[in-house]
Amino acid sequence: MAPILAGKTSEAVVTDLVGQLGNGLVHIRNPHLDLMPEDNLYHFGLGTKTHNLLAMFSDVKFVCVGGSANRMKAFALLIRKELGFESDENDIADICAATDRYSMYKVGPVLAISHGMGIPSISIMLHELIKLLHHAKCRDVMIIRIGTSGGIGVQPGTVIITDSAVDAFFRPQFELTVLDKVVIRGTELDKELIQELLQCSQEISQFNTIVGHTMCTYDFYEGQGRLDGALCSFSSQEKFDYLMRANNAGVRNIEMESSVFAAMCHLCGLKAAVVCVTLLDRLQGDQINTPHDVLVEYQMRPQILISTFIKKHLGLNT
Amino acid sequence: MAPILAGKTSEAVVTDLVGQLGNGLVHIRNPHLDLMPEDNLYHFGLGTKTHNLLAMFSDVKFVCVGGSANRMKAFALLIRKELGFESDENDIADICAATDRYSMYKVGPVLAISHGMGIPSISIMLHELIKLLHHAKCRDVMIIRIGTSGGIGVQPGTVIITDSAVDAFFRPQFELTVLDKVVIRGTELDKELIQELLQCSQEISQFNTIVGHTMCTYDFYEGQGRLDGALCSFSSQEKFDYLMRANNAGVRNIEMESSVFAAMCHLCGLKAAVVCVTLLDRLQGDQINTPHDVLVEYQMRPQILISTFIKKHLGLNT
Repeated sequence: MAPILAGKTSEAVVTDLVGQLGNGLVHIRNPHLDLMPEDNLYHFGLGTKTHNLLAMFSDVKFVCVGGSANRMKAFALLIRKELGFESDENDIADICAATDRYSMYKVGPVLAISHGMGIPSISIMLHELIKLLHHAKCRDVMIIRIGTSGGIGVQPGTVIITDSAVDAFFRPQFELTVLDKVVIRGTELDKELIQELLQCSQEISQFNTIVGHTMCTYDFYEGQGRLDGALCSFSSQEKFDYLMRANNAGVRNIEMESSVFAAMCHLCGLKAAVVCVTLLDRLQGDQINTPHDVLVEYQMRPQILISTFIKKHLGLNT
Repeated sequence: MAPILAGKTSEAVVTDLVGQLGNGLVHIRNPHLDLMPEDNLYHFGLGTKTHNLLAMFSDVKFVCVGGSANRMKAFALLIRKELGFESDENDIADICAATDRYSMYKVGPVLAISHGMGIPSISIMLHELIKLLHHAKCRDVMIIRIGTSGGIGVQPGTVIITDSAVDAFFRPQFELTVLDKVVIRGTELDKELIQELLQCSQEISQFNTIVGHTMCTYDFYEGQGRLDGALCSFSSQEKFDYLMRANNAGVRNIEMESSVFAAMCHLCGLKAAVVCVTLLDRLQGDQINTPHDVLVEYQMRPQILISTFIKKHLGLNT
């Protein structure tokens, strides 16, 4: 079998070749998949034999993902209102109700899914989502992560559109161990989509939005240089120096999912963007103790931006 | 400041020295923490100024953690019944209801908490849990992860008590990037606790329980050698060879949290164990398509073992 990804025994740099994707379909990079008699999307509680995925999802054009299930439900309710989908109900059904791993809501062409916290959690969701879009024969799907993050040298509440997801050494790459080989993948995001989102934010003109690098870490406390975890082995000066090195490398915010999100979406031919609001400026502190109502307003900002963007794409008045 | 953990510029092997822990208190390894005027446990929705953590938690002796919020709630309800805590209510209050990141339930000396999927997600929870136990001045706390996993060469439904958590290269270590240094930590688990749990399982005699190595990966699909993800670059033979190498190295199951759990609990002086049931044998397949009721029964097994163990420790009839 010709490998899609070739690796040496350890830490080999691998160039992933993205194939020609003229037809707008999601690009599954697994020759085994279509040979399987059934595909059980275990963490969604959905499957090819138990659900008619084509009927349920073939019209999906926009997928919006975020860590918190409550936030993604709020986003689905906002989209329902903004797109004018009338409903007598205040609630909206969770398509993944059979499991508590993720929540999923659908409003017309928009799918909203929660992904939990961290690279492993979002990666499970992305594998199953990409297979779902494949089984449902979706075309020309855009996917946007709307998240929260810690800022570096920017005012809390600033919205950051990621141009490049970098690791803890500020390298634009995502590293994964596959069998016992280390595979390195690029974390490019769609340049056109970044510009479209920035333009859209300027039109809204309600909050500050900038484009910058996003650092993606495996840990919230020690891994992001926080002084307030159960473990901390560095001084406040060492922390500050590290964050300043990140700042000088172009990092404007830190979160925990963007690198694998960028890598997987790129490989599978999905037009992808990461739009996160910053809840604090990490050069000023570590603890998130902003009042609840201010945090709620901050968290609405990426939602407002993306709902406006979707309406614009659908030709609806914004 | 004298570093607790010292690292060279890259991939330095660090020996973590566990201090003397004679007093039974949790060992916080952060000199900054007690200088902070307030500690906001953000992902729990709890804090030292907003909650009386001493009054709420000082009697905790057993902490049980697992990925799924529903499963941890079911465990809390089981413990309430088994410990004879009478209640008119069918439900039980989620202490972390102010946030949807984790769920937390308390029944007498037992705390049950969900941690989501993957190392980053459980690591955030553990930082905040260890600080919570510190603020509440808890003593002699035991912590047990009750999870699900994929087995290697064992019958589905087998319960595995982890003696050593190993990485994807079968090394008993956990690697973390702190600032821009790679730190390597040991993943020892409590030998005495392992034997006590094994003994307890033999007394119950309802299901097969063994002791073995647990492999902890960052990814469920490619990272565990699955052929059924959206991406797969290896053949079924390469997958089988890798799992056989793991099997020969003593690995009996694969999950996604044990290494950081073992490392953090060891450093903070918490007596810790990992008890996971296997949902399938990965040498036979990748998809989890066992009937729902069988899976539910499998998932009860670690719960039955741990509730029996807790009752025994509390001197209650089992």
